[in-house]
Amino acid sequence: MPRTMKAAAFVRPGRIELREKPVPEVGPLDALMRVTTTTICGTDVHILKGEYPVAEGLTIGHEPVGVIERLGSAVRGYREGQRVIAGAITPSGWSNACLCGCGAQDGAGTAHGWKPMGGWKFGNTIDGCQAEYVLVPDAMANLAPVPDSLTDEQVLMCPDIMSTGFGGAESGGIRIGDAVAVFAQGPIGLCATAGAKLKGATTIIAVDRVPERLEMARRLGADHVVDFSKADPVEEIRRITGGRGVDVSIEALGTQATFEACLRVLRPGGTLSSLGVYSTDLRIPLDAFAAGLGDHRIVTTLCPGGKERMRRLMEVIAAGRLDLGPLVTHRFPLDRIEEAYDLFSHQRDGVLKVAITP
Amino acid sequence: MPRTMKAAAFVRPGRIELREKPVPEVGPLDALMRVTTTTICGTDVHILKGEYPVAEGLTIGHEPVGVIERLGSAVRGYREGQRVIAGAITPSGWSNACLCGCGAQDGAGTAHGWKPMGGWKFGNTIDGCQAEYVLVPDAMANLAPVPDSLTDEQVLMCPDIMSTGFGGAESGGIRIGDAVAVFAQGPIGLCATAGAKLKGATTIIAVDRVPERLEMARRLGADHVVDFSKADPVEEIRRITGGRGVDVSIEALGTQATFEACLRVLRPGGTLSSLGVYSTDLRIPLDAFAAGLGDHRIVTTLCPGGKERMRRLMEVIAAGRLDLGPLVTHRFPLDRIEEAYDLFSHQRDGVLKVAITP
Amino acid sequence: MPRTMKAAAFVRPGRIELREKPVPEVGPLDALMRVTTTTICGTDVHILKGEYPVAEGLTIGHEPVGVIERLGSAVRGYREGQRVIAGAITPSGWSNACLCGCGAQDGAGTAHGWKPMGGWKFGNTIDGCQAEYVLVPDAMANLAPVPDSLTDEQVLMCPDIMSTGFGGAESGGIRIGDAVAVFAQGPIGLCATAGAKLKGATTIIAVDRVPERLEMARRLGADHVVDFSKADPVEEIRRITGGRGVDVSIEALGTQATFEACLRVLRPGGTLSSLGVYSTDLRIPLDAFAAGLGDHRIVTTLCPGGKERMRRLMEVIAAGRLDLGPLVTHRFPLDRIEEAYDLFSHQRDGVLKVAITP
Amino acid sequence: MPRTMKAAAFVRPGRIELREKPVPEVGPLDALMRVTTTTICGTDVHILKGEYPVAEGLTIGHEPVGVIERLGSAVRGYREGQRVIAGAITPSGWSNACLCGCGAQDGAGTAHGWKPMGGWKFGNTIDGCQAEYVLVPDAMANLAPVPDSLTDEQVLMCPDIMSTGFGGAESGGIRIGDAVAVFAQGPIGLCATAGAKLKGATTIIAVDRVPERLEMARRLGADHVVDFSKADPVEEIRRITGGRGVDVSIEALGTQATFEACLRVLRPGGTLSSLGVYSTDLRIPLDAFAAGLGDHRIVTTLCPGGKERMRRLMEVIAAGRLDLGPLVTHRFPLDRIEEAYDLFSHQRDGVLKVAITP
Repeated sequence: MPRTMKAAAFVRPGRIELREKPVPEVGPLDALMRVTTTTICGTDVHILKGEYPVAEGLTIGHEPVGVIERLGSAVRGYREGQRVIAGAITPSGWSNACLCGCGAQDGAGTAHGWKPMGGWKFGNTIDGCQAEYVLVPDAMANLAPVPDSLTDEQVLMCPDIMSTGFGGAESGGIRIGDAVAVFAQGPIGLCATAGAKLKGATTIIAVDRVPERLEMARRLGADHVVDFSKADPVEEIRRITGGRGVDVSIEALGTQATFEACLRVLRPGGTLSSLGVYSTDLRIPLDAFAAGLGDHRIVTTLCPGGKERMRRLMEVIAAGRLDLGPLVTHRFPLDRIEEAYDLFSHQRDGVLKVAITP
Repeated sequence: MPRTMKAAAFVRPGRIELREKPVPEVGPLDALMRVTTTTICGTDVHILKGEYPVAEGLTIGHEPVGVIERLGSAVRGYREGQRVIAGAITPSGWSNACLCGCGAQDGAGTAHGWKPMGGWKFGNTIDGCQAEYVLVPDAMANLAPVPDSLTDEQVLMCPDIMSTGFGGAESGGIRIGDAVAVFAQGPIGLCATAGAKLKGATTIIAVDRVPERLEMARRLGADHVVDFSKADPVEEIRRITGGRGVDVSIEALGTQATFEACLRVLRPGGTLSSLGVYSTDLRIPLDAFAAGLGDHRIVTTLCPGGKERMRRLMEVIAAGRLDLGPLVTHRFPLDRIEEAYDLFSHQRDGVLKVAITP
Repeated sequence: MPRTMKAAAFVRPGRIELREKPVPEVGPLDALMRVTTTTICGTDVHILKGEYPVAEGLTIGHEPVGVIERLGSAVRGYREGQRVIAGAITPSGWSNACLCGCGAQDGAGTAHGWKPMGGWKFGNTIDGCQAEYVLVPDAMANLAPVPDSLTDEQVLMCPDIMSTGFGGAESGGIRIGDAVAVFAQGPIGLCATAGAKLKGATTIIAVDRVPERLEMARRLGADHVVDFSKADPVEEIRRITGGRGVDVSIEALGTQATFEACLRVLRPGGTLSSLGVYSTDLRIPLDAFAAGLGDHRIVTTLCPGGKERMRRLMEVIAAGRLDLGPLVTHRFPLDRIEEAYDLFSHQRDGVLKVAITP
Repeated sequence: MPRTMKAAAFVRPGRIELREKPVPEVGPLDALMRVTTTTICGTDVHILKGEYPVAEGLTIGHEPVGVIERLGSAVRGYREGQRVIAGAITPSGWSNACLCGCGAQDGAGTAHGWKPMGGWKFGNTIDGCQAEYVLVPDAMANLAPVPDSLTDEQVLMCPDIMSTGFGGAESGGIRIGDAVAVFAQGPIGLCATAGAKLKGATTIIAVDRVPERLEMARRLGADHVVDFSKADPVEEIRRITGGRGVDVSIEALGTQATFEACLRVLRPGGTLSSLGVYSTDLRIPLDAFAAGLGDHRIVTTLCPGGKERMRRLMEVIAAGRLDLGPLVTHRFPLDRIEEAYDLFSHQRDGVLKVAITP
């Protein structure tokens, strides 16, 4: 094993650069993963732009596929050389939040055991995986072996966007026969669309304005697509549902406009399942909310993590229920990651997700 | 049975007056109830002030205790002379909303079976019960016999504020050992406090500024009370919970300030259970919402109705789990209801609830 | 409208015969449906054999597809001539059971509002639909309009087997990524298999011994099939799941052997969802039950009914999520229903379901 | 710290004896607790009698109250000298079962991460706490600090019987206004009775035949008590509930008779929540089960563990919601534990629980 490695580090707003950093030391509960494939997330672009602050020099990235290079002294149940993934969220397993089934808000190390977004560590509070190696904390809770039958790219969406998108469908409580609207068909919205179908929704309405994304939404499960640049999506969804509205709406962009539209298309008693990362205060219009008397629910979901979650998502792929391969539209070696950021952050060339290979 | 009756009718904003009106005709599914006791709700005050518009001449009131005077031709299972209550919300039982367990959004008669607040009929879309007689629609779904052991005043809170307040605790998903904050200790907030205790919460924090209300909150279950005119309730609640925040917060007033405070006191993954009737758009502050990544839930509840709900609430009273008698602070005959409105709407003389007896 | 009609009546154990009976009178809450297509259920065979006793002369059948012939005086929201179905279970909407969301145990007319299987009325406690006309009680809660795009045969499974089979998957709480075993692939088991897929299960194992049924199970969603005449299904399922067992097992036959096998294939904390109609006491083996300490659940489900349920199931068909057409293997006019019973009760000629057309 | 300690070890069926054993070595994730108070459980008596086999020489006992003596090298967030408890069940936090919220079936170390009863380690698969010292595995997931305001005896019931009894009420899904029957009022049944009250049940019926236990049941929340030696409890419960039956019945003994009675007293759609440890196969009578069509649920619960569970249970005590102190009827030093076993196993002298102090 080498002593140093290449890693994409945050320098300052507007600048992520490839650096030479030491390969991490392995603590008793950790595992060192040699990254074989990773990707860039919309959140990474927020970091790049300085909209989400992280420490100078931090390695970015939270979607690792790789091979176990070294195991901590207290880690059992794995072997070096094993192909594994870890989730974007790496719950400790032992905080109060984790013991309540809420590992995304893992407060390991705090007085009471809860911390907002505390489960998101990679590329946020510890070094991430856009690097040759990444240290996985609480390895026994987080390393999920990859079935031999699946390629790196097939499982590349599991750590974050598939878990998040499906989480939106799950938190929404979608039931067989539901009508569901999904606002925005970026990678997470597309996974929410796919998740809605897997949960049994029968009227799935995907909203976006990029034709390729709407086309992909159809492939992944949408029964109807609405191009919001051509028609008012609230009116369209009312029309499609015969005036009834949807049982569940999923927000997958993070703007006031989509949040508000999600409320307006709900039937009374419906659920708005929010996945977006917002950058401004949100406004709930009085009328769309029935003044508080509509039995509405608004639920938010941060990407569920942990090895059991990863196992289940890989099962979905392995069983052929869903093929997210087509979401990988571009490929770059780690050496050219700055170029990949440039393409991805400007959403050029129909990019959905890029595969990065160290 | 007389041909006419006295009824409190909405005339115009600022004016509710006692009128002589015909006693209603009884349709096949209806029951005519002779009202023996009723009360005034905060919502009625909204109507009085013109903040919630209803038709000119409509009889107000939605909390009836009485005796069956006449049964519709298709109504079985009851007898004339029987003491009964009906909920503020009177679900039909057969709309799609009702068949989904959401009778408060009953869309009986609409194309798709859902209507915002459609289950609230009394004093809203049909004549209410601040009158000598009231017609109860879909009687078989709504009439709940009153046990002989209970007085009118003992069950007077069941139709609305007890059902609503408890509903806030139930929708919040309160579990044994939870910390719960209840913002505002008017009649509904007090019932939410009592409901939180009945559900097993162990740290119940009641917020108000009226000493009598805080005192009543203690009697009904609060472990801590916070006078928001003397201390910042968000800071106090953080302090009481050791920095952790509450599992569930209940909004029982209907203002931006309390809604926002309810968000700020939640632990990550917590639930804001909203009962208030809002009169302005609401704002969700980005920081209090963890930018959408805190696994928060916001749920709203309109008073659950129907005879089974009423039966269960009367069981709570009959079993001695809760005594809401002390909430009745004033009593008026129906003849003096205008005086009662004056007292209640100005919250004079420590009034919590008034009993009106036709 | 004629005064008399043909109807298949139970005479005595072993004998169902076609009789001339009066067309029913229509009460205020009823609707008279002219039956255009119906079918025979396994339960009808139990009745034929005398294993489930019903009154002499009762019209059998509980799966009606037809046209509204006449509406009761109090029924609103429908028009004569409209194509509709009603569920095998016809909840009143207003009993305590219905108001708890448990219409299958509808106790309309009882003192407390609950009655075991009380929602099952057609061909059990009131005349059923193997006839030219059938009277639908509580029509507003039960009549579900059929979309023009769907044929009678396409919706023929909705009233019972699709609702029941899906109910097994739903009550089992199947989640995305679950492993599920379904014991017996008769019509209900096949629908449970399809329901498991719709709910997101990724390892679905179907057990039967009839090759055509196992083949149909594959078409409807099974990932693995086990012929229990050739291999021990408990061992096979353990093998397929790598020793882990399934998250949910579904019993769709009604025997001790399948019930017990369902327990034995569960992982700890798993759920046995039982759909079978048993004819003997059941035994829970101590070891398969971890002596009561395995966090197991056993849930039973009687076919959910009501118009909203029917609407949702027809949505599944209309959305192309599932084609149950191939389950109709034989067709008979009502005149030859005795012949149909003979074929169906002896499971000759690969019969799955028969369509009966009056 | 001494090198050896006294510990109650299982020798052979019929024989538990106090031995001198080495004080355990502390691994990186462990904590060594000096036991200050512990107790004997009904399960320990099963072990004593040889009905539940454990290894020769194993230290028995799974209800520790004590002080942290030494922390493993990887354990953070605690300090030596701190007063703590650990649950009878000690989940690892990182197995697949734990990550599904089912720590009682913790399969840490197995291939797939699930093991029946795998979370029960103390006095079962590892040395227990009827000793001067006990080694707590996965300390960060399991050590719960005891508030200064609470005595050892006040929290002595938290590790097992309170968690188990409450678990029965929780798994039963008890709601405000429910009728609940609890069969057997030993320590666990008494805690189930208390748990039913905390969850809002309003008709709680406790069944036993020992007058002192029925009296204690009344103190802890029972509204009705039934002495089954004087009246048939099924008939009595039917009578008390007006023929309706209970929403939830809780089995807290572990016999066919009580299991069957629990089924017979359920309303349709009701839930049997089973806590008993059975020693024979169970029989489900066809009629009590509505042949599988009654929408019944049977759920089993093994004592929930982990530090968050312990924290919540101690909150219940600290908030004054429940006083389990009176359950401690006898006290013995560890030296006289054999005498304590003799008293407890023969249920002499009105014993409910014994406190053992090393």
